[in-house]
Amino acid sequence: MKRTKRVGAIIKILSDNPNKLFSLGYFCELFSAAKSSISEDIHTAKQILEEMELGMIETSAGAGGGVKFIPHISDQEAEELLKQICEKLKDKNRILGGGFLYTSDLMFDSNLTKKAGEIFAKRFMNLSADYVVTIETKGIPVALMTAHALNLPLVVIRRESKISEGSTVSINYFSGSAERIQKMSISKRAVTSGSKAIIIDDFMRAGGSVKGISDMLAEFDIAIVGTGIVIATTEPEKKKIQDFFPLIYLGSVDENEKIINVFPNSLIFCKKNL
Amino acid sequence: MKRTKRVGAIIKILSDNPNKLFSLGYFCELFSAAKSSISEDIHTAKQILEEMELGMIETSAGAGGGVKFIPHISDQEAEELLKQICEKLKDKNRILGGGFLYTSDLMFDSNLTKKAGEIFAKRFMNLSADYVVTIETKGIPVALMTAHALNLPLVVIRRESKISEGSTVSINYFSGSAERIQKMSISKRAVTSGSKAIIIDDFMRAGGSVKGISDMLAEFDIAIVGTGIVIATTEPEKKKIQDFFPLIYLGSVDENEKIINVFPNSLIFCKKNL
Repeated sequence: MKRTKRVGAIIKILSDNPNKLFSLGYFCELFSAAKSSISEDIHTAKQILEEMELGMIETSAGAGGGVKFIPHISDQEAEELLKQICEKLKDKNRILGGGFLYTSDLMFDSNLTKKAGEIFAKRFMNLSADYVVTIETKGIPVALMTAHALNLPLVVIRRESKISEGSTVSINYFSGSAERIQKMSISKRAVTSGSKAIIIDDFMRAGGSVKGISDMLAEFDIAIVGTGIVIATTEPEKKKIQDFFPLIYLGSVDENEKIINVFPNSLIFCKKNL
Repeated sequence: MKRTKRVGAIIKILSDNPNKLFSLGYFCELFSAAKSSISEDIHTAKQILEEMELGMIETSAGAGGGVKFIPHISDQEAEELLKQICEKLKDKNRILGGGFLYTSDLMFDSNLTKKAGEIFAKRFMNLSADYVVTIETKGIPVALMTAHALNLPLVVIRRESKISEGSTVSINYFSGSAERIQKMSISKRAVTSGSKAIIIDDFMRAGGSVKGISDMLAEFDIAIVGTGIVIATTEPEKKKIQDFFPLIYLGSVDENEKIINVFPNSLIFCKKNL
C-alpha cells in the first residue's frame, strides 16, 4: 500500500505540472522515504504511464537533475478528438452567413482545448521555445492549454493598446476575414529581444493575423519556431505564411444546401510526421 | 504491480477530467478486470488522494452511477499561492500610473490561474451552476481553469459584437476603471433562459463590469449564483455589487514612494468560511 500510495501521488503531482522539473529530494521529503525507494517509485510511475499511453516521465541525473512529466496524447485519442470536433462543426446550425461558422462553444470548451493543446505541445515540444503567443480572443483557451502543457508563459496580443498593458508596440495589418485593416498591439514587457515563440490561434483563412503577429515579433528579433492553428480553411490555398500546422481543414460552406465540408489533418495520426 | 498500475492510471484519468462521471464498466474494460477489483482500486485511489490532500473521488451507485474526481486545493497550498501572487504584485515595476498595475503576466500564467481556478471551484462547486461566464480578455484564463475544474462550459462576453458570434444582445454600462461608457455583447447561442451562472473575472474596482454582466444575464432570466474575482480593490468600499469572493485585495498604490499595498483574502484559509 505504501508503494502504491507513493506511485499514485507521484503520478498526480507530476502530471498536474507538465514539463516542470521536480528534484528527487522533493518526493523524499514529501513521503519521508529514501532516495532509492523514490527512484523505484518513479520508475514504476514511468512504466504505468507509458504502457497506458498516458504520458512520459523523464529523469535527468546530476546536481540540476530531477524528474518531469511530458504530456502525451495517443494517435488514437488525437484522431477521436479531431473526428469529434469535425462532427460538431458539420452541424448546419453553425452557419452564420458569409462563410462564417459559429465556433465559440468549441473554442471556449476546456476539455477540447486541453487535448488540442496537448497535440500542439507534442508537435512543438523540442523547439526550445520561450513562450506561446496568441491574439485575443478565441485562440486564448487553446494557447493557454498549449502553454500549460509546455510549461511556458503565454503572451496575448491585444487588438487595442490598453493602459493596463503599459508601453506597447502596435502594427496595422490587412485581415482577409474582416476585409479591412486591423490593429494589433503587444506589451513591451511581455517579450524579450532574441527569444523564440510558438504562435497558436483558433482560425486561419489567408493568414493575415499570423503574418501580422510574425511581423510584430520580428520587430523584437523574435523567431517563430512553430505555428499551430485549430481550423484552417483550404481556400485560399496560397496563404500569407507557409509553415503552419492545422488540426482541422475547413473546405467549402454551402449556405443553400447547408453542407459544411470539414476534415481532420490526417498527418497528425502518422507517427513519422510528428 | 497490476494493482499499482490500475490505481495509478485511474488517478491519472480521473484527475485529467475533473467532475466528469466515469462508469465502473469503463475501467473494467480498460484493464480487463472484474468490477470487484476496480471497486477496490477506486477505493485505494480515493484514500491516496485524500490522505495527500490532492483531491477527492466521489462514487455513486445505481444505473446512472459511477466515479468522478473533485479537484481540491489544500488551505496551505491556497495560502502559498496567494502569498506568492501578492509578492509578485508588490514589485514596484508593475506601477503603470493612474493606479494601474501591470498584471498580464500573472493573469496569463497557466499554473497560477489553474490553482486560482481550483480555489473558485472549491468555493462554488455545490451551486448547480450551468456555466462560468467572464468578459474578455484578462479574465479568460482563470475563468477557463475554473470551468475546467467544475466541468462546465465557459461563456465569454465580448466587448464588440462580432459576426462570428451570430445574433447577440448588447448593453452599455459605465466602467469606473475606464472612466467611460463601455459596451458588452453576448451571443444568444451561448446561453439558455432560466439557467444559473458563476461569474469569474480578473479585476474589480467599483464593480461596473460585473454589474453589467449581471444585468445582461438578467435579460435571459439567468441567475448569478457566485462571483469570483482574482484582485479586488479596497476602494471604493461600496461596490456596485455586494456578493463577490475576491482572492486578493489591492489597497493603495503610492506612485511616489513606489509602494503597492496588497494582501490575500484571509477568509480563504478558514475552513468554516468555505
